[in-house]
Amino acid sequence: MIHRLCVIGVGMIGGSIALELARRGFCHEIVGYDRDIHALELACRREVIHRSEARLKDAIDGADALLVAVPVGAMRQVWQELLECGLRCDAAIKFLMDVGSVKQSVIADIRQVFGEVPSWYVPAHPIAGIEHNGVEHAQQDLFVGKRVILTPVESTSSEAVKTASRLWEALGAYPESMSAVRHDKMLAASSHLPHVIAYGLLYALDSIDEPEVWARFSGGGLRDFTRVCATDPTMWRDICVSNRLPILDVLRVFETSLSQMREAMEASNADDLQRILYRAHQARNRLVGAQTDQSQAS
Amino acid sequence: MIHRLCVIGVGMIGGSIALELARRGFCHEIVGYDRDIHALELACRREVIHRSEARLKDAIDGADALLVAVPVGAMRQVWQELLECGLRCDAAIKFLMDVGSVKQSVIADIRQVFGEVPSWYVPAHPIAGIEHNGVEHAQQDLFVGKRVILTPVESTSSEAVKTASRLWEALGAYPESMSAVRHDKMLAASSHLPHVIAYGLLYALDSIDEPEVWARFSGGGLRDFTRVCATDPTMWRDICVSNRLPILDVLRVFETSLSQMREAMEASNADDLQRILYRAHQARNRLVGAQTDQSQAS
Repeated sequence: MIHRLCVIGVGMIGGSIALELARRGFCHEIVGYDRDIHALELACRREVIHRSEARLKDAIDGADALLVAVPVGAMRQVWQELLECGLRCDAAIKFLMDVGSVKQSVIADIRQVFGEVPSWYVPAHPIAGIEHNGVEHAQQDLFVGKRVILTPVESTSSEAVKTASRLWEALGAYPESMSAVRHDKMLAASSHLPHVIAYGLLYALDSIDEPEVWARFSGGGLRDFTRVCATDPTMWRDICVSNRLPILDVLRVFETSLSQMREAMEASNADDLQRILYRAHQARNRLVGAQTDQSQAS
Repeated sequence: MIHRLCVIGVGMIGGSIALELARRGFCHEIVGYDRDIHALELACRREVIHRSEARLKDAIDGADALLVAVPVGAMRQVWQELLECGLRCDAAIKFLMDVGSVKQSVIADIRQVFGEVPSWYVPAHPIAGIEHNGVEHAQQDLFVGKRVILTPVESTSSEAVKTASRLWEALGAYPESMSAVRHDKMLAASSHLPHVIAYGLLYALDSIDEPEVWARFSGGGLRDFTRVCATDPTMWRDICVSNRLPILDVLRVFETSLSQMREAMEASNADDLQRILYRAHQARNRLVGAQTDQSQAS
C-alpha cells in the first residue's frame, strides 16, 4: 500500500505502529526520525524501523506517507519544520497522519502554519496505549481490536482518509470518523478528566502527613487508580493545556458531584450517599458492559 | 489453636478466612451464621464452613472464638444481638474479632452496647479484598503476604491480640498494631478517598451527555480507575458515614489540589501544571516502590 513511510517521533506509539506495519508488510520501507538521537539508535537496533535519518529533510525525502507521533505540545514545532523542509499543501503524498490525544488544537496549529488544512492531513487518535513511554516499550499487536478515531475536516481528501484507514485496519484496529469537536469533548470525559483526577489525588496525598505510611498500607485499589500517573507528566501537561476548555467543562461537573458527596457526609445523610453511590455503581456496570460489547464486536 | 470458631457473616471476606483456616487446620470446627439463608446454604455447599446454624444463639454456643465479618453499618446490630444472646464481657472466649474497614466507630458501637470495650474484643482490618461480594467469591490464599492492622484499646487483653495475630499468621498475613485513630486517618487517605473520587467521577460522567458514548470510547485507564466501584455501594455508604471526619479532612486537601489544577488550566499556565503533575508522578513512583518493598519483605 505504502512505498516509504516516514515516522517522525519513534516513541512507544510511533514505534509500535512501525514495528507492526513492517511485520505485516504494509510498507516497503520505514524511515525513522527523532530529535532524540538515542531513541533513534534504539529504534534501529530493535529493528522497529528500517533506517534512520538524522535530518528531517532527508527523512521525508521520497516518502509517500508521513506519520507524526510526537507529544501534542511538540506538534506545532514539527509542522513548522516540515514547512521549512519544503513540504507544501500540494505535495504528492498519500497522507500525513498524527496520533495525538487532542485534535482541535493540532488541527488549528497545522492550519496556522500552512495557511490552510492540507488535503493530505488526516488527524487520528488510537484509543490504545500503555503507561510507559519510549521506543523500548514499543510492542506488537498494541492496536489489535482497538478503536481509532479519525477527525477529518472539510478540506481533507477522502483518498487520504481511506488510505489512513487501511493502515489502521492492517494493524487490526477499527477506524471510525467523527468531528474533532466531538472527539475532544468525549475524550475530555473518558480519559483526560480521569487523568487530571488521578494526578490531583497523588498530589493531595503527597502533601498530607507521612506519605510513606499511606503508600505502605495501600492495596491494589490505589495502585490501579493511579496507574495512569506513571505516564510522562509532560505529555499530560500538553494535553491539559491543549484541551483545557472541554476538560474544564467536565471538571466542573465532577466538582459538583464531589460537593454533593461532601455535603451528604457532612450531614451524615446515608440516603443521599446511597443514591449517589448506587447510580455510580450502575454506571460502572454499563461501562464494563459497553467495553465487553466492543471487544465481542471486534 | 481454636476449638470452635463461629463466623458471623459468611460473605467474601468471612468466607475466605473460614475456607483457609479449615484447610490449614487452625480450627477444629467452623460454624457459620448469616442473616442471608442463601449465603449460609452456599457456604455449606462450598464447604467454606463445617456447619451452619439458623439462630445466632446456637451458632455461638460452645464457640471459643468469634469472627464478625459483616458490613460496618451492620456491626452495631450484631453487637446488640450478641448481648441479647447472653454474651458478656467476662465470657470465656479467646477473642471476638471484626474485620471492618473503619475502626473508631465500630469500637464506639461495641462500647455503647456492652457498657465497656470487652477485653476479648480485637478490632482488625485486613488490607486485602477484591471488588466482588458474596461467599461465591470466597477464595483461598486471599491474605497471603497482606498486612492486617489490629487496633486494640487499653482494655483489650494481650492474650486475645496474640491469638488473633496467630490466626492471621496462619493465613500467611502480617498483623501489626496501631491506634484506631491512626488507622482511620491513614485508610481515609489510602483507600476511602480514592473510592469516593471514583464513585464521584462515574456519577459525574453519568450526568453528562451520551454516557454510552464515553463508555464505548474509553480505554483500560477508565476501567482500572473505576474498578473499585464494582463493590457493593451499601458497604461504601457505611464506610463514608462511619469514617466521615477523617475522609472529609483529606477530601478538602484533594479539592484544593483540584482547584490548583483548574486554575492552572484556566490560565493556560503550563509551568504550574508541570510542577503539579511532576510531583504527583514522583509520588506514584514512591507508591509503587513502597508496595514492591512490602512484597519483597513478605
